[in-house]
This record gives sequence, C-alpha cells and structure tokens, in this order.
Amino acid sequence: MNIAIIGTGHMASGLAKQFALAGHRVMLGSRHPAQASLPASTPSSVAVLAIPQALQSAEVVFLAVPFAAVGDVIQAAGPWDGKIVVDITNPLTPDFMELSRGFTTSAAEEIARLIPGARVVKAFNTVFAQVLDQGPDFGSERVSVFYAGDDESANQCIADLIASTGFKPVYAGGLKNARYLEPLAALTIQLAYALGHGTQIAPAFLERPSASS
Amino acid sequence: MNIAIIGTGHMASGLAKQFALAGHRVMLGSRHPAQASLPASTPSSVAVLAIPQALQSAEVVFLAVPFAAVGDVIQAAGPWDGKIVVDITNPLTPDFMELSRGFTTSAAEEIARLIPGARVVKAFNTVFAQVLDQGPDFGSERVSVFYAGDDESANQCIADLIASTGFKPVYAGGLKNARYLEPLAALTIQLAYALGHGTQIAPAFLERPSASS
Repeated sequence: MNIAIIGTGHMASGLAKQFALAGHRVMLGSRHPAQASLPASTPSSVAVLAIPQALQSAEVVFLAVPFAAVGDVIQAAGPWDGKIVVDITNPLTPDFMELSRGFTTSAAEEIARLIPGARVVKAFNTVFAQVLDQGPDFGSERVSVFYAGDDESANQCIADLIASTGFKPVYAGGLKNARYLEPLAALTIQLAYALGHGTQIAPAFLERPSASS
Repeated sequence: MNIAIIGTGHMASGLAKQFALAGHRVMLGSRHPAQASLPASTPSSVAVLAIPQALQSAEVVFLAVPFAAVGDVIQAAGPWDGKIVVDITNPLTPDFMELSRGFTTSAAEEIARLIPGARVVKAFNTVFAQVLDQGPDFGSERVSVFYAGDDESANQCIADLIASTGFKPVYAGGLKNARYLEPLAALTIQLAYALGHGTQIAPAFLERPSASS
C-alpha cells in the first residue's frame, strides 16, 4: 500500500515504522522535509517529502499532526477527493488533560466536514506513540486499534492495514462513534499521565464465550 | 460491609449476587418489595426491603435504577448525608444507543449535585449485568471495574468492595472522569448490541513493562 503520513512527530514516526516493517511504501509529509529528524529506529525505506509530493501517489493519508493544526494542513494540501484519510488525532486542551470538544461532535466528524470528498476513518487515536514504537505484542495479547468510519471499503482497507502490522483491528462503527473513541483516549491519557500507569498501556475489550450459547 | 442496592433489575440482582457471595450483607431496596422477583441464582441471604429500610443500616448505597429514575429515588429516599453512594448508571437515550449528556457534564456529576452531603463514586457502569452475573473471570484475566470519585476514603471503600468480589478495581480519577467512563459504556454497548460482539465483553487496559524502565 502507498501510505502518506502528514507529520514528523512521535506518532508519525511510530506509524511509519510499523507500516514500513509490514512492507508498505511510506512517505512522511513535512512542511520542512530537509529539517525533519526521525528516530534512529525509523526504517531507511521511509521517505520524507514535501506534503504535496507525499500525497501524490498515496492511497491512504494519515493526519498525524495535532488536531489544532489539521485545518491548516487540509487547506494547504490536497486534492482530497477519493482519498482515504485517517484521523488519528485527539482534540485535547492545551494541557492535554481534557477534551476540547465532544458529545455532539468529535474531531473526526469536524475533519470529515472539512474534506467532504474524502473517506475519513478514525483510527489509532487510543494508541500511544510509545506503544506504537514498541509494537503490538503485550504478552499474549495484541494491542487493539479501534477504527470507525462510514465508508465500507475505506474501513476494510484500514482494517487490513492495521492487521498487516500485527495490531488487532477492532471495528467501532460509524464515524460518529469517534464521540466514544476520543473520550477513550482521554481516559487512557488520564491513566498514563495522571494516575501512574505510564504510557505502555492500551485499551482493549476482553471477551469470553457466552454461557448460554 | 452493609450494602443497600436500590433497584431490583438485572444490574441490581447481579451486584447483589456478587456482594453476597463475597460475604457482605446485602439489602435490595424496592418501592414494592413484596412484588420483587429476583433470579433463582440470587443467594438467599439477600433481603428485599422497602427503600427506607434498606438504606437504614447501609454504609454504601448503590443506585441501580435507570438514570431517568434516579432523581425520583433520591428525593423519595434518604437521608443521604455521609453515605457513600455508588452511581452505576449510564445516561442513555430511549433506544439505549447513545448518551443523553456528556462532555461538559455526566450522570455522576449531576447525581452528586442532587445529594451534596453524600460521597458519590462512579463504578460498575461499564460492566454488563450478564458479565456481573457470570462473575469476574475472563480466562486468565479478571474483568475491570472502573471507579471514579472525589472522596479518598469512599474511593478506597469501593475499591476494597470491588476487590472482595474478585473483579479488578481500576481507579479512573475524580468524579469528573465519569465524562470518560460513560462514553466507554456507550462504546461497549455499541460493540455488544450493534457490532455483533454480544454481552460477554468488558473494557480493560492492557499493560506491559516499559522497555526503558
């Protein structure tokens, strides 16, 4: 798969590493590609390009910049029509400890309204960069990556992409359910940073066979 | 511990069963105690009383009625001063598929405002009655019970109570974090009822040792 990731921060480089290790072609898009510095663990196949060049041949575009910067990125780049755009953001307050919006809206829905021609999927917003960097295995469990979106083929594409990295794709319904996934990230941030669990945690759903089936 | 549970539905009887099995004294409070019918699996030590009688000697009171009924119950019963009150509700729309409030408020915070003398703890709202009924063990994992509250001694009491049943207490911060726990229940409901996972699921946080520690 040809994947563009806009951003060069910890989430961007973590995604780039996992997708490159899974054999995908990964292009990071930066406003200042010559100045971008990636972690030493980034596979050498990962290219850093100007944003328009990164987008050119990409089937899937990850928005891996802070939510507050997404509007500018969307305006500056494009065209977006027909692209699968993955929103990994969380709409956080400046101290990162609360959400700046929710209940009647979500970052994902606001992004989708900005690029009506694109097929927006919410994903990876509950996965810390530190978890992404170290990979999907938590003992015998794989880390869940929740994804939500309204376009069936885009959802399937992202599910396949997640599965290709060894993470566990968990379908969370339509894009509107970002209203639940973004608070889940906020809870994860609380546990990690305010309540002492650290960043090697990830939300999941345990399941057991029903006694009556 | 002397525990009153207001309500006689599936959550009420599930809590009663687990608390009674753990050796606590459990009183269910009902407006019509003579007409209450509990599942056959309810331990015989569980008493069904009128609400005022159930509350009388209780140190901890569970509100196990639908959120829409909580206001009436709070007005009709009491006194609430000094009691530990556990809010297990989710503020759902009539079709159970969405939340009726969130982001700037939560069911738990609204309940706390109604009974300012009580120490309110949010807990058990992400645990399905069907999970509660069958107990805490999901293979090698125990089901997490998230609890959130502003009073340290009340939080500790509820953590001990949860642990006594074999479920895993997970502290989720102050009562305000009910704003994250209620959407987590909504997501759990979506997965169970809309997305085919069924009701034997429960949210949890996976943890692994940090590579750098």
